[in-house]
Amino acid sequence: MKMENNKRYEAGINVMEELFSQEVRTGMEEIKKISPDFWNILVSFGFGDLYARETLSLAQREIVTLTSLITQGAFGQLKVHLQAALDNGLSKNEIIEIIIHCAGYVGFPKAVQAMSIAGEVFKENE
Amino acid sequence: MKMENNKRYEAGINVMEELFSQEVRTGMEEIKKISPDFWNILVSFGFGDLYARETLSLAQREIVTLTSLITQGAFGQLKVHLQAALDNGLSKNEIIEIIIHCAGYVGFPKAVQAMSIAGEVFKENE
Amino acid sequence: MKMENNKRYEAGINVMEELFSQEVRTGMEEIKKISPDFWNILVSFGFGDLYARETLSLAQREIVTLTSLITQGAFGQLKVHLQAALDNGLSKNEIIEIIIHCAGYVGFPKAVQAMSIAGEVFKENE
Amino acid sequence: MKMENNKRYEAGINVMEELFSQEVRTGMEEIKKISPDFWNILVSFGFGDLYARETLSLAQREIVTLTSLITQGAFGQLKVHLQAALDNGLSKNEIIEIIIHCAGYVGFPKAVQAMSIAGEVFKENE
Amino acid sequence: MKMENNKRYEAGINVMEELFSQEVRTGMEEIKKISPDFWNILVSFGFGDLYARETLSLAQREIVTLTSLITQGAFGQLKVHLQAALDNGLSKNEIIEIIIHCAGYVGFPKAVQAMSIAGEVFKENE
Amino acid sequence: MKMENNKRYEAGINVMEELFSQEVRTGMEEIKKISPDFWNILVSFGFGDLYARETLSLAQREIVTLTSLITQGAFGQLKVHLQAALDNGLSKNEIIEIIIHCAGYVGFPKAVQAMSIAGEVFKENE
Repeated sequence: MKMENNKRYEAGINVMEELFSQEVRTGMEEIKKISPDFWNILVSFGFGDLYARETLSLAQREIVTLTSLITQGAFGQLKVHLQAALDNGLSKNEIIEIIIHCAGYVGFPKAVQAMSIAGEVFKENE
Repeated sequence: MKMENNKRYEAGINVMEELFSQEVRTGMEEIKKISPDFWNILVSFGFGDLYARETLSLAQREIVTLTSLITQGAFGQLKVHLQAALDNGLSKNEIIEIIIHCAGYVGFPKAVQAMSIAGEVFKENE
Repeated sequence: MKMENNKRYEAGINVMEELFSQEVRTGMEEIKKISPDFWNILVSFGFGDLYARETLSLAQREIVTLTSLITQGAFGQLKVHLQAALDNGLSKNEIIEIIIHCAGYVGFPKAVQAMSIAGEVFKENE
Repeated sequence: MKMENNKRYEAGINVMEELFSQEVRTGMEEIKKISPDFWNILVSFGFGDLYARETLSLAQREIVTLTSLITQGAFGQLKVHLQAALDNGLSKNEIIEIIIHCAGYVGFPKAVQAMSIAGEVFKENE
Repeated sequence: MKMENNKRYEAGINVMEELFSQEVRTGMEEIKKISPDFWNILVSFGFGDLYARETLSLAQREIVTLTSLITQGAFGQLKVHLQAALDNGLSKNEIIEIIIHCAGYVGFPKAVQAMSIAGEVFKENE
Repeated sequence: MKMENNKRYEAGINVMEELFSQEVRTGMEEIKKISPDFWNILVSFGFGDLYARETLSLAQREIVTLTSLITQGAFGQLKVHLQAALDNGLSKNEIIEIIIHCAGYVGFPKAVQAMSIAGEVFKENE
C-alpha cells in the first residue's frame, strides 16, 4: 500500500524543522531505518496533519504535548519536547508552571520526575 | 490537625467562582458533606495554591487540565472543565483543536470520547 | 487547511463498512457534526491509513484493538469492537481467551469489566 | 485443559464470603455464565491464591485494592471493595484518609471521583 | 500456605522454555531468590494457567502481550516478548504492523518507543 | 504570590526526616534549585498536609504509596519509598506480599518490575 503523500509529508518535515534541532531530527530518523512506513506516518500524520494545523500556535500545541507526555508518564520523549517548547515560545517559568499545575492533576510522582528532566533541559540552555 | 488557612481557602473559592457556575459549585459541595477535610484540601490546594498562581492564564491552565483529563481518561470531570474553558477564553474551535492534537498523543479511543462530550457541551452553549 | 484526501478517506470508509453495522456507523457520524476535520482524520488516518494496511488480517487487528482498549480501560468503545471482532473472524471462544490472557497483563478489575461487556455482546448475537 | 483445583477454589470461595454479601456474590456469578474458566481463575487465583495468603490482614489487603482501583481509575469495582473494606476492619475515616492520601499520588480527578463513590457507600451504611 | 501445584508449575516451565532462551530464563529466576512464592505464582499462574491454555496459539498470545505492554508503557519487558514473538511465529513485518496499529490506539509516544526497542531486537536477530 | 506557610512546611520537613535518610533528602533538594515554589508545594502539601495527617500510620500510608506507584508504573520513585516502608514499620515479607497482591490488580509486568526493585532494596539492607 502506497501511503506517501508529498504535501502532507513536506508539511510534517517543515514542522519538525521548526520544533527540533538538526541533531534531534537525525536521532529521530533511526525510526526510518526500522520501518519506512511508520516514519512516513509519523511525519505525515503526527507532524503534517496534526502539528501543522492552524487555530493553535506551536507554543499552545507544546502545552498539550508536554501535559500529555507527563500524564501518561512518557518521559523518554519529554526532553525533546521541553526543548521544542523553549524554542517555540514557552518560557522556563511557563514550563515550570505547567508542571506545577500537573501535580494536582496527575499526582506528585510524575510531576517530580518531569521537573527533574526540566531541570536538565534548563541547565543545557543556560 | 488544623489545615484551614483562610487566605488559601479564599483564593480557591475565588478561582472556583471564575471557573464554574453556581450550579456546578453547588454540585461540587457534595464532597464537603462526605469529608470537610478533603473539601478544604481541594479548595485550598487544588484551586487556591495551583489555579490561583500567576504566569499562566486561566485559559492556558484549562489547556493543561483538559489535556490531562483526556490523557488519563477522567471523563467524569471533562464536562465541567470544557464549560470552564469556554467561559474563560478558549473558543469552541480551540477546544476541538486540543482534542485533535490529543488524538496523536493518546490515541483515538480517548479522543473520540472527549469529542463526543465536547459536542454535548457545545450544544448546551448554542 | 485542506486535509481531505479522497483515496485515503475512501479506504477508511471501506474498512468501516467491513467492521461495523450501518447502525454503528450512523452513531459514529455524530462526530462529523461536531468536527468535520476530526471525522476526516478518524476515517482517513484511523481506518484508511491503519486498518486498511496489509500484513495483518482484520481479525488480527481486532486482537490488537481489543487488547489495547481493555488495557487502557476504554470500555466505551469495547462493545462495537467486540461485535466487529465477531463479524470479522474471531470466535466467541477466542475473544474470551483474549480477555483471560489480559487478566495476567492488566489485572482482574479491567478483565472482569471486559468480560461483562463481552457477555452482553454475546447475548445480542445469540 | 482442566484447571479446577478444589482446594484453591474453596479457599477463594471462603475469602469471597468474608469480603462480599450474598447479593454481591450473586452479581459476580454472572461471569460464570459467560466463561466458567474465567470464573474458576478469578476465584481460585484472584481470591484463593492471592487474598487467602497470610502476612497481610484482609483490612490491609483492602488498602492495596482500594488504592490500586483508584490509581487505575477502575471505578466500576470500587463500590463493592469499599463495602468489603468497611466490613473487614477499615473505618469510614480510614477510607477517607486513603482517598486523601491518594490525591497527592494520582491527582484530584480520580480522588474526587473516589470520594463521591465512597459517599454513596457511606450513605448506604448509615 | 502451600501454593505449589506440580502440574500447573510444570506446564508453566514448559511454556517458558518455548517462549524464552536459557539466558532470559536464568535472568528471570532472579525473582525466585527474592520471593519463591511470587516465582511460583508467576510460573504456575502466569505461564501455566494462562499461556498454556488452548484456543489461541502462542503467536496470537504474543499479539495480546505485545499490545498490552505497549499500551501500559511496560517497556522493560517488551524486549523479551519481542524476541519470544519472533521465535514463536510472528514475522518482523507483523511486529512492525502491530506497533503501527497501536499508534492509532495509544498515541505516538508509546508507539515510537516500542518501534525503537523493536529495532534493537531486529538488529540482534540479523 | 506568597505560598510559604511555615507550619505546613515544618510539618512536611518533619515527616520527610522520618521517612527518608539524609542522603535521599539531599537528592530530593535538587528540585528546590529548579523551582523553589514546586519544592515548597511538595514539602508543605505532599508531606505537610498529606503524610502528616492522623488516622493512618506512616506504615499504612506507605502501603498506599507503594501500591499507587506500582499501579501507575512510577518506578523511578519506588526505591526510596520501599526503603521508607522498611524504616517505618513494614517488614520485608509484608512488602513482598503487597507486590504479590498487586499482581492480581495491575498484572504481572508491573508486579515483576516492582519485585526486582524490591530485591535491590532488600540487598542493600542485608
